Amino acid sequence: MYISSTQIRVRYAETDQMGYVYYGNYPTYYEVGRTEALRQLGTTYQQLESLGVAMPVASMSLKYIKPAKYDDLLTIKTIVKETPHMRMHFQYEVFNQEGVLLNIGESVLAFISIEKGKPIVCPDYLIELFTKALNEQGAD
Amino acid sequence: MYISSTQIRVRYAETDQMGYVYYGNYPTYYEVGRTEALRQLGTTYQQLESLGVAMPVASMSLKYIKPAKYDDLLTIKTIVKETPHMRMHFQYEVFNQEGVLLNIGESVLAFISIEKGKPIVCPDYLIELFTKALNEQGAD
Amino acid sequence: MYISSTQIRVRYAETDQMGYVYYGNYPTYYEVGRTEALRQLGTTYQQLESLGVAMPVASMSLKYIKPAKYDDLLTIKTIVKETPHMRMHFQYEVFNQEGVLLNIGESVLAFISIEKGKPIVCPDYLIELFTKALNEQGAD
Amino acid sequence: MYISSTQIRVRYAETDQMGYVYYGNYPTYYEVGRTEALRQLGTTYQQLESLGVAMPVASMSLKYIKPAKYDDLLTIKTIVKETPHMRMHFQYEVFNQEGVLLNIGESVLAFISIEKGKPIVCPDYLIELFTKALNEQGAD
Repeated sequence: MYISSTQIRVRYAETDQMGYVYYGNYPTYYEVGRTEALRQLGTTYQQLESLGVAMPVASMSLKYIKPAKYDDLLTIKTIVKETPHMRMHFQYEVFNQEGVLLNIGESVLAFISIEKGKPIVCPDYLIELFTKALNEQGAD
Repeated sequence: MYISSTQIRVRYAETDQMGYVYYGNYPTYYEVGRTEALRQLGTTYQQLESLGVAMPVASMSLKYIKPAKYDDLLTIKTIVKETPHMRMHFQYEVFNQEGVLLNIGESVLAFISIEKGKPIVCPDYLIELFTKALNEQGAD
Repeated sequence: MYISSTQIRVRYAETDQMGYVYYGNYPTYYEVGRTEALRQLGTTYQQLESLGVAMPVASMSLKYIKPAKYDDLLTIKTIVKETPHMRMHFQYEVFNQEGVLLNIGESVLAFISIEKGKPIVCPDYLIELFTKALNEQGAD
Repeated sequence: MYISSTQIRVRYAETDQMGYVYYGNYPTYYEVGRTEALRQLGTTYQQLESLGVAMPVASMSLKYIKPAKYDDLLTIKTIVKETPHMRMHFQYEVFNQEGVLLNIGESVLAFISIEKGKPIVCPDYLIELFTKALNEQGAD
């Protein structure tokens, strides 16, 4: 299991008139979690795109447990349990500054050749990065 | 089964550098679908909020089939299959102007007393509106 | 003076915890106004991009007069007073369903060659469309 | 002159199909700049709202110099030159990780009594914080 953490400060723009973070902002929070998970692993979306590979989201699910509020300092945990192949699975846990779990979710991303617009296998270098990270973080 | 349709023109703001609608915009599209479903039924979120009832999203899932593009004229079909009780289930289908199915999803909403911050049963008038609509649209 | 009107229904996503439309959504409303102004004139951004021309915003100013609220049906008036040359000037007026003026603004857009990344003159066909429209709508 | 700096990592959600940050995201970046400026000064929007004071934006202007790109690490400089009274003026400068100036802007905010919905004078404690900060940062 590979776990990466990053923090996000809730913006006023992200609240709605219920006084909480609008539910539609969590996919963006997940994206930030994925971006930082890749960066901590040693790569970036930009590197993937420069290799001609896009990573569109194929499916996603979200569960809203408690609301996040303006100016909350959220921790996004991004979890990868398996080496990617045709698809890549991410899980997410969002906590506030008191350590309360607010939201959980998961998403599946595909690998697409930008040139051909067709699904491809995960690039070798990314498989290697995840294999290494999954081995290092051990057997839970 | 109660089905409501509404249309959305994709904004430039909603695209991303992949050249398609950013995946995190679909929850907002679903919200527009729900809003118009309630309006076509004879009520509004505002009426619910003025009665002291909020309808936060409890969970959601989305499946991305094909990308939407800038300036596409999308049709959002919002589908309700059951009269709401403690929770309300919505399903969504998003089509482009060629009738191609781009995205499907579903969400579950809770009814919350704004004053007490606690879950409540769906207000009677809303149950009646859905019961009537579900009977009228018949047995598919 | 060429004036185009379009309508936008305020989304829940666009409100903030003050209970009004978040101030940062008006640039998107202006974009919708511009898009529809071009469409009513007989062209689209897509057509411009397919000709290798991008239209980034160079500057913008906004004045917030009264707040817009959730579910308001806004009218965006987009006003062009001069035929574009190196730059194109748009003015905006945003009204709610009671005809109250909520917001005014203006923006200046440049024409950029997508291939070269350099400023260019407005494409001839767009100059012609505006010249015709400005003549037809007459002398105010 | 009081200057505060904060950093923002550009999200994929914030790009558009031109491949740059959508122009309508800068007001949100400015909001983050203001929020951190107040925090570094020793207060928060939340504290103001808990005192019954809202700070809506009355006007804003923006100048787009160069585009920001996905994953850029932006520095937002937020500048206050005068102690607030009925209104509060902020200026903004946005730089990328190479120190290139991308965007400048300014905004004017009002102080509103949330209870009465009327303009009020800036709360004393905020005037004091800015007076102190403006004196300390000295005469440039």
